[in-house]
Amino acid sequence: MADNKVYRASTTAPVNIAVVKYWGKRDPKLNLPTNSSISVTLSQADLRTLTTASCSASFDGDSLTLNGQASDISGARTQACFRELRARRAALEAADSSLPKLSTLPLKIVSENNFPTAAGLASSAAGFAALVRAIANLYELTDSPSELSLIARQGSGSACRSLFGGYVAWRMGDKADGTDSKADLISEASHWPNMRALILVVNAAKKDVPSTSGMQQTVATSGLFQQRISQVVPANMILMEEAIRKKDFPQFAEVTMRESNSFHACAADTYPPIFYMNDASRAAIRAVEAINAQAGKTIAAYTYDAGPNCVIYFLEEDEATVVGAFHRFLSGVSGWKASAAEAKSSVELPENIAGILKDGVGRVIQTGVGEGPEKTDEFLIAEDGQTVQR
Amino acid sequence: MADNKVYRASTTAPVNIAVVKYWGKRDPKLNLPTNSSISVTLSQADLRTLTTASCSASFDGDSLTLNGQASDISGARTQACFRELRARRAALEAADSSLPKLSTLPLKIVSENNFPTAAGLASSAAGFAALVRAIANLYELTDSPSELSLIARQGSGSACRSLFGGYVAWRMGDKADGTDSKADLISEASHWPNMRALILVVNAAKKDVPSTSGMQQTVATSGLFQQRISQVVPANMILMEEAIRKKDFPQFAEVTMRESNSFHACAADTYPPIFYMNDASRAAIRAVEAINAQAGKTIAAYTYDAGPNCVIYFLEEDEATVVGAFHRFLSGVSGWKASAAEAKSSVELPENIAGILKDGVGRVIQTGVGEGPEKTDEFLIAEDGQTVQR
Repeated sequence: MADNKVYRASTTAPVNIAVVKYWGKRDPKLNLPTNSSISVTLSQADLRTLTTASCSASFDGDSLTLNGQASDISGARTQACFRELRARRAALEAADSSLPKLSTLPLKIVSENNFPTAAGLASSAAGFAALVRAIANLYELTDSPSELSLIARQGSGSACRSLFGGYVAWRMGDKADGTDSKADLISEASHWPNMRALILVVNAAKKDVPSTSGMQQTVATSGLFQQRISQVVPANMILMEEAIRKKDFPQFAEVTMRESNSFHACAADTYPPIFYMNDASRAAIRAVEAINAQAGKTIAAYTYDAGPNCVIYFLEEDEATVVGAFHRFLSGVSGWKASAAEAKSSVELPENIAGILKDGVGRVIQTGVGEGPEKTDEFLIAEDGQTVQR
Repeated sequence: MADNKVYRASTTAPVNIAVVKYWGKRDPKLNLPTNSSISVTLSQADLRTLTTASCSASFDGDSLTLNGQASDISGARTQACFRELRARRAALEAADSSLPKLSTLPLKIVSENNFPTAAGLASSAAGFAALVRAIANLYELTDSPSELSLIARQGSGSACRSLFGGYVAWRMGDKADGTDSKADLISEASHWPNMRALILVVNAAKKDVPSTSGMQQTVATSGLFQQRISQVVPANMILMEEAIRKKDFPQFAEVTMRESNSFHACAADTYPPIFYMNDASRAAIRAVEAINAQAGKTIAAYTYDAGPNCVIYFLEEDEATVVGAFHRFLSGVSGWKASAAEAKSSVELPENIAGILKDGVGRVIQTGVGEGPEKTDEFLIAEDGQTVQR
């Protein structure tokens, strides 16, 4: 066919930060987890991936460009996503012969984050969610977000949760083929819209001692890990869903903090041990404890992913108290919103904690709960199939 | 009775560093632990408490002086030791009326460590072991070290292990009254005499974030702790005793490192989390891993108690390799033995690890496995009952 038409679709997808943590795979090939998890989707105004998917007979094979860099697509994870999406498109084409045979055309994907990679935020969740959602849009698939999450999961486990906004669960499932290991919505962002997040981006460079091992080393060697997946997480899943449904911040906060502790404890119990947090990360924990103590109630919760950055959840009504406590001595770093300068906090953090954080925090990100992937008319690939230069 | 005679006895007692960790009490009053533990007794040439116990009708009530400072003896732990030892003396006196009634006389105890308190080494184990052993000597008790360990345990749990030299187990027991929770000897120091220890004393002051909670907070709040005491420790006790009996250093080392990791993981899983290690502590773990990797076999093992200091166990035949790897960049700190300057190590630690340690280590202690408490003629109380000024 001499048709060199370029078909295009664009989407954005959000970052999510888990409050019940994913750590450990029972099937590394299919990205099937050892436990269920829950996350909060963060606002795309502050953190998002924009991805354009296109296909055309004129393209010279499949390609993927991330933040201006050609990316290797030969890996099993990316290939699994392409294969699954093409199979679904092919099924539509088989049922309706009037549809163009997009499933047979080379794919060209271009993707960009609106936040610096240097921030050390795991961008693979947003990246794979955007990739799957963009191709699904291109192929005009009718699959639900939950069905698409089965595909995104195979790209990056936590990506499955970025197909929804708000408060999202990834149910581990129990089938060997993984067809029941997918994300579903606990509550829309609008159910509890006043959830906020302050991210303290910690300078990892100089003080960092790199970890070479990952979650499968924990599964293989930690003597405490079985207790986490068989007892701790199932109990926390119930408590966290309840906290979200009831909008009970103290319960949400306690489970969030305990879950972060439990995950990092299992990392530290790995042999050899895995450490993601450094002295600045630990000072941020003491800061959150001090804020709650001085406030006389739990108004802030810390959580750490596989890195030193601290994500602090709080409610909009406590923004001045929480943000102001950090802005007081961190006003020199970038990332503050204009309102932060006016945030008057009754909390004064102990000098040693403030000192360690002043040394260790390189920038902040102020954001909050947000929506899931959104179709957009902003394209990173032009109508003629060329990558847009920006 | 107008007899103002001063009765005296002196002993030394060693420090011990656990390789299977004690953390958690099932009975806080009796110091009954949630799990058994194993330690290596360190040489008293480098680390010891010297204690003189005396009694006389001329003394004005019981007293205890530690490192020149009057110490409060009204606490339940010290009182339990005094009461138990007096009861045993009273039983001897009841059986033999020719014995002086020492059990009725006021006790004066003076105790000194040969290492700076600033080193941050838990001195309570050596202190209570020396106190119990000194009073037992004064009272001429015939109780075995294991029987005396029942008393020392009530002063400070880990003190029960400092009544023996070499390789020592504290069996948790299962009786409610604690009469089977005592220490026994796994192997004399002479069984495996070439065990060495290098202690990296970490500057905790500036970077430290104090922990206010302790082991009972872990028992009450850690979701992973039950797994540790029911599964992890019982398995490690068997492996560690076997390693010591067989003098199998790689097995000894692996269990030592896994145990340290497991204990600190449970501390970090406490709510709120307890952190004892800092960035320098973690760098020392990476240093030990690098030494073993470059040596091509396991020749060094790290372990951490409730503090940031790193204790590294190794065998005498590997002293040059292990000590030399640290001396290369830490030669400026105090505590090295003369031989360290000649230790040529094939190991070169990565620059970032060496840099963090150079910033974080304030002094070192070079020592090795050693003997238990030893009776001595060195007295801290003179014949007339006066404290010796030194």
